[in-house]
Amino acid sequence: MPTLLERAQSGQITDDLKIVAQDEAIEAETLRDRVAAGRVVIPKNNRRTFHPMGIGDGLRTKVNANIGTSPSHHSIQEERLKMGVALQAGADSVMDLSTGGDLQAIRKALLDECPVMMGAVPIYYLSAELARQQREFADFSVDELFTAIENQCSSGIDYITVHCGTTRRSLEQIAHSDRVMGIVSRGGSILAMWMAKNKAENPLYQYFDRLLEIVHEYDVTLSLGDSLRPGSVCDATDRGQIQELVTLGDLARRAKAAGVQAMIEGPGHVPLHQITANVQLEKRLCDGAPFYVLGPLTTDIAPGYDHITAAIGGAIAAAAGADFLCYVTPAEHLTLPDLKDVRQGVIAARIAAHSGDIAKGLPSAIERDREMSVARNGLDWETMYRLCLDPTVAQARRQASEDAANRVCTMCGELCAIQTYKKSMDL
Amino acid sequence: MPTLLERAQSGQITDDLKIVAQDEAIEAETLRDRVAAGRVVIPKNNRRTFHPMGIGDGLRTKVNANIGTSPSHHSIQEERLKMGVALQAGADSVMDLSTGGDLQAIRKALLDECPVMMGAVPIYYLSAELARQQREFADFSVDELFTAIENQCSSGIDYITVHCGTTRRSLEQIAHSDRVMGIVSRGGSILAMWMAKNKAENPLYQYFDRLLEIVHEYDVTLSLGDSLRPGSVCDATDRGQIQELVTLGDLARRAKAAGVQAMIEGPGHVPLHQITANVQLEKRLCDGAPFYVLGPLTTDIAPGYDHITAAIGGAIAAAAGADFLCYVTPAEHLTLPDLKDVRQGVIAARIAAHSGDIAKGLPSAIERDREMSVARNGLDWETMYRLCLDPTVAQARRQASEDAANRVCTMCGELCAIQTYKKSMDL
Repeated sequence: MPTLLERAQSGQITDDLKIVAQDEAIEAETLRDRVAAGRVVIPKNNRRTFHPMGIGDGLRTKVNANIGTSPSHHSIQEERLKMGVALQAGADSVMDLSTGGDLQAIRKALLDECPVMMGAVPIYYLSAELARQQREFADFSVDELFTAIENQCSSGIDYITVHCGTTRRSLEQIAHSDRVMGIVSRGGSILAMWMAKNKAENPLYQYFDRLLEIVHEYDVTLSLGDSLRPGSVCDATDRGQIQELVTLGDLARRAKAAGVQAMIEGPGHVPLHQITANVQLEKRLCDGAPFYVLGPLTTDIAPGYDHITAAIGGAIAAAAGADFLCYVTPAEHLTLPDLKDVRQGVIAARIAAHSGDIAKGLPSAIERDREMSVARNGLDWETMYRLCLDPTVAQARRQASEDAANRVCTMCGELCAIQTYKKSMDL
Repeated sequence: MPTLLERAQSGQITDDLKIVAQDEAIEAETLRDRVAAGRVVIPKNNRRTFHPMGIGDGLRTKVNANIGTSPSHHSIQEERLKMGVALQAGADSVMDLSTGGDLQAIRKALLDECPVMMGAVPIYYLSAELARQQREFADFSVDELFTAIENQCSSGIDYITVHCGTTRRSLEQIAHSDRVMGIVSRGGSILAMWMAKNKAENPLYQYFDRLLEIVHEYDVTLSLGDSLRPGSVCDATDRGQIQELVTLGDLARRAKAAGVQAMIEGPGHVPLHQITANVQLEKRLCDGAPFYVLGPLTTDIAPGYDHITAAIGGAIAAAAGADFLCYVTPAEHLTLPDLKDVRQGVIAARIAAHSGDIAKGLPSAIERDREMSVARNGLDWETMYRLCLDPTVAQARRQASEDAANRVCTMCGELCAIQTYKKSMDL
């Protein structure tokens, strides 16, 4: 069965394309061009039915929420609640990153209820399986690795993170470098361990064609992971990171030629002034493939508030052309996120995405701000609430204040600048 | 008595200069040069004694927390608590923006306890006084205005916001424009009302020399306010805003010639891609005078989360050269901030300032991130807490988790990438 990409390449405008084009208010033919060129992906497993969404060039910047258990903390019910909170807060995608508990059951429970694209990381599933069998988590055969990948694809996952660019060459680049943090990617560190143990090349790189064959069958989108993303602002944009990105660009091109959609994952911890260069580099080296960034975090010293640090970096990345923001929650670097963290993380990432979309010049983005400002200038609180990213919180804060029954707000009371300026205009 | 600026201009390296130079790890002579050139200010009323701090070129980006009552909500005790929270969270400055209650008593209570520079807005004090006398708040004489300014200067305030650039010419620029939000500055709107009523020029502009004379006596720094700052991202960088900035540049030069320190206040609501241009424009038009920005907010649609929106804009502004960030709290646009809002606002602004300082290349900035990353790579939690912007929250979050007693954290548990990578290096 041809994939979504192959249909686009052969000139077909499928229903999925039509839906995305309509949602994004662009011409279906333009969208088809961009999908065919690998500049836009529409992750959608061919076994799943849901309202599809596009990620990439000229589209609204999307937000993903990571949920999932860990070996120390796991409950299906809690993950279902987290997914609900993420969606209610406006996440466009959810990734199940579970590594503890009954992983197949968790994934199924989530997929059954998920109305948006869902991603996963097969190597997490594999390592949890090994732990269950009391085997070391790098003690797997190449076949077991590909079986784990097929398991996730056949269960209906729409996109998978695979760290295909973590080659012996890129690992050498960091081994004798001044990197502070080494590898901070779980998947990447497991592969590095496997490669060291087996004195062999990364199987996801060496047998990339086998990977393409599997994902082609289910029309799963590749999210080419960056094991060597910097885990400290001091490590950003170093040789290891860029060596890996060059490789990912090669692999994205091979995926496109095989009719498989691919996006590129990006850093990580990056100082503010290097973010735009990182996005430009990805677009150039990967032929414009969609860029999926985690953060970036513009400083390392704000644990407890990393949703804010990531909003700074994410907004700048989006403005520079990043297409997909993975949220970071206030729990990052400290513990697994709870429901409140998930909500805070999604809202912060949406602020970043929307700020980026205004800068990108998306007409629909600033239009909402214009409507908000018109309502604000008219002291029309109901319309303001409706246009808020989070109407509930805005309404609750105001209604708890002394001026809830008045037109003005408690910040200025009767000294309201809007009122005063209008009166001055009437004189 | 000569002012701090005049002493610097005459080549003196005073104790205040020495303290600031040491804190910032720069040569005292370099600092003296920058103060003399108006590129750095050290706001300090000559009636006050406290550890001074510098704002401007080459120095750490500073953070101000606005506190203060409103006509609908006022309590001295609450403002004292807010100031305490702001300082504990790391604010470098506090502004008392009270407009309700016994303003002199509030200001005195705060000044008595304040160990950092404190700013105020004389026209708020005047309008509250008028309200107390049941007079309209634009019903004041020029003498009353200057008396209010002298009142604040003699009480010990270190810098005052004065909207001197709101001239008839700049008001004309917005009167017949496509501005959505008109004037959103309280002080600016009062002056606009006064000018319309009296069909006269802004007295702070017309009698600028009289203002200089008063502030010179107390060595108070001018914070030249921007009445026409955009209140919507749609209004950013318009003719009214820039007309006012041109005027403020003129006035900053006149202040410097009179031995009076001055900084320039800036927007406001500004789309992400216009922020750098706004900073460059200020630096060029105002001869490098320190830039004190409120936000900027990169979108209008996030009430309840405007500390995050402001952190995005503030970080970009700081990276581009802004010197002083006025915090924005989650209460902005909705109600007066409470203690929790003050804390959130200060931390968010400090994240922005620090992210900007890394981008500016301040050596001490990234050094702290490096130490944090070294500790993180060593799973050394005690050192990590110590280096956190907010150690309390970070420690509390981790200690509530299942892995509090372990070296790893609950995000990954035993799948810790740091541990795995290190083991792989040993193979």
